[in-house]
Amino acid sequence: MAASKCTRLTGALTGQLLDSVDNVLFDCDGVIWRGDQAIPGAPEVINSLKKQGKRVFFVTNNSTKTRKMYADKLNKLGFDATEDEVFGTAYCSAMYLKNECKIQGKVYLIGSNAMRQELEAVGIRQVGVGPDPISGVQIDWANVPLDQEVQAVLVGFDEHFSYMKLNRALQYLYNPDCQFVGTNTDTRLPLEGGKAVPGTGCLLKAVETAAQRQAQVVGKPSNFMFECVASRFGLDPERCLMVGDRLDTDIMLGSNCGLKTLLTLTGVSTVADAEANQKSGCPHRQRMVPNYYIDSIGDLLPALQAEKSVFT
Amino acid sequence: MAASKCTRLTGALTGQLLDSVDNVLFDCDGVIWRGDQAIPGAPEVINSLKKQGKRVFFVTNNSTKTRKMYADKLNKLGFDATEDEVFGTAYCSAMYLKNECKIQGKVYLIGSNAMRQELEAVGIRQVGVGPDPISGVQIDWANVPLDQEVQAVLVGFDEHFSYMKLNRALQYLYNPDCQFVGTNTDTRLPLEGGKAVPGTGCLLKAVETAAQRQAQVVGKPSNFMFECVASRFGLDPERCLMVGDRLDTDIMLGSNCGLKTLLTLTGVSTVADAEANQKSGCPHRQRMVPNYYIDSIGDLLPALQAEKSVFT
Repeated sequence: MAASKCTRLTGALTGQLLDSVDNVLFDCDGVIWRGDQAIPGAPEVINSLKKQGKRVFFVTNNSTKTRKMYADKLNKLGFDATEDEVFGTAYCSAMYLKNECKIQGKVYLIGSNAMRQELEAVGIRQVGVGPDPISGVQIDWANVPLDQEVQAVLVGFDEHFSYMKLNRALQYLYNPDCQFVGTNTDTRLPLEGGKAVPGTGCLLKAVETAAQRQAQVVGKPSNFMFECVASRFGLDPERCLMVGDRLDTDIMLGSNCGLKTLLTLTGVSTVADAEANQKSGCPHRQRMVPNYYIDSIGDLLPALQAEKSVFT
Repeated sequence: MAASKCTRLTGALTGQLLDSVDNVLFDCDGVIWRGDQAIPGAPEVINSLKKQGKRVFFVTNNSTKTRKMYADKLNKLGFDATEDEVFGTAYCSAMYLKNECKIQGKVYLIGSNAMRQELEAVGIRQVGVGPDPISGVQIDWANVPLDQEVQAVLVGFDEHFSYMKLNRALQYLYNPDCQFVGTNTDTRLPLEGGKAVPGTGCLLKAVETAAQRQAQVVGKPSNFMFECVASRFGLDPERCLMVGDRLDTDIMLGSNCGLKTLLTLTGVSTVADAEANQKSGCPHRQRMVPNYYIDSIGDLLPALQAEKSVFT
C-alpha cells in the first residue's frame, strides 16, 4: 500500500476499499460519536456495513466503561451493536492480566468501577477503587499496609487519583515480581468545544516516574488490542480496515498490525499532521500515515447505498 | 580539576581542599541528617567550619519547609545556623517567581503550606493549597472556575495532589501566557531504612504530560539555586565547595556552576555510580562525577580540629 499513502477516499475508491475488507474496526470518540452525540450518518454507515455482511468492532482506549455500558450507549445512539463487538481497555486489560500475566491473585487497581467489573468478570479480584485520601506523615506512607495477594498494579483512568494512590502503587512496585500494566497512554480526554481534561497517560507517567519502571500498555497502539479482537473472531489482518481519528493510536495500531487504515477528520488529528509524518523521513512517524482519509465516516454512506442498490 | 576527578578525600588533601574555599554549600537530607537524626559528627563539622571563618549554606530541593522551619530543625539537631543561610525550594521558587517571572498577580500552587508562606513573604498571593477532591462529571472539570488573576502554575511537593489539581493546572496552562514552574524533579523522597515515597518529580511529570509543556525547574541541578545564594552573598564560584549525596542534583549543580564538589556516601549515590559516569564517555554524565568523595562528612572533623589547633 506504500504508493497509496494518505489518499482522500472518494467515489469509486470507497467501494473498492470496502470490497477489499471483511472487518471494520472503529475507534469511538471523535469517529462515531463526540461526547453523547452520534457523528451524523455514523449509525447508518455501521448498520449498512453489517447488513452487507461486514463484521464491525468498536475498539477504544477509554477505560471508564464496561462492554455492556458501551453496547447500551451504542444502541441508544442508533447503532446496531452487541457487547461482543466492543473492545475497550477496561475489558482488554482484564484479558491481558488473565491470559498474558496469568494473574491468580489480586490487582491493585488505580481505575474505575467499570474496570473493577471487567476484572471481576474474568475472576480477578481487585483492591483500590474509590477515594484514598492522605493521612499520617511520610514514614506512615512508606509503611502503608499492603495486600499480600496483590500480584499486579493496573493503572487506568481514575478521577480519584491521589498522592496516596501513587504512593501505594510505588510500594507494590518495589517488588520486582509485581507486574505493572497500564490501560493506555492518551494524555488528554478531548471533550466538546475543544476542551479537554487530563487523560490516563498523565496518571501512568506519575506512577512510572515513582516506580522507575515502564508499564506494559494494553491500549492502542499496542498490538494486544488488535490481537484481542483477532484471536476471538479469527480475523485476517489483510481483510481488516481500522478507522480512527488519531494518528498516534488508531493509525499506528493499524500500521503495526498490517491492517488497512482510514483517518477520519472529526476528531484529534488533521491531514496536515499526517502529511508532516509522511514527509518526515522517520520510519516511526511514517507508521502514523493512514492509507486513506475522509472528512467524516458519514461520507461512506453514498458508496454503501450504491452497493446496496446493486443487491436489491 | 579534571585530573583529580573522584578522588577519596583523606589526610592532607582535606586540609588543602578546605583552605581553597571560603564557602561550603551543604545538601541536607542524606548529608547532614537522615530523617530526624543528625549524621554523626555533622554538627561539629559545620560549627567548626563557621568558627574558622567559612560561610556555610544549606541548599535543599525539599519544598515542604520554610527557611525558618529549616533553621529551627538545624538548631534543634545542634547545628549553628540561621534562616539566612537556608536555601530550600519553597523559598527559591518564591524568589524565582518574583524576580525572574515578575509575577504581580497570583500563583496556582500545587504544594504545601510552607510554600504558601514563602510566597506570601515575597508578596505573591496563591490559590490551591489543601485538599481538592473531585465532584461532577468530565464537562464540569473542563469548565472548572479559574481565578483570572493567576499568572503562573507552581508545582512542588503536595500530599493532597489529586486528579482535580492536575485538571486545574491543565486548565490554567492552556493559556500560553501562564508561566509554569516546578520546585524540583526528584522522583522519590528517601526515608529511613531504605524506604521512600513518591517525590515532586512524579507530580510535575503528570502536570507536564497533561499540559504538553515543560516546567522551568528551580531546584538543583538548575543554576538558579546557586545563583540565589551567590547573588545574595556575593560568592565567587571558584571559592565554593558543594557537598551532597546525589550525583544528578548536588554534584551536577556544582559542575554546572563551576564549584568544587564533594560526594558523601551517607545518602543516595555510590562511588560505583560516580565511576560509571566517569567511564561513560558521555559529557552529560561526566558532569555527575565529583572532584572528591568521603564516607561521611563526619570524616572532615580530624582535619578541622588539626587546623584549629594551629590557630589556638
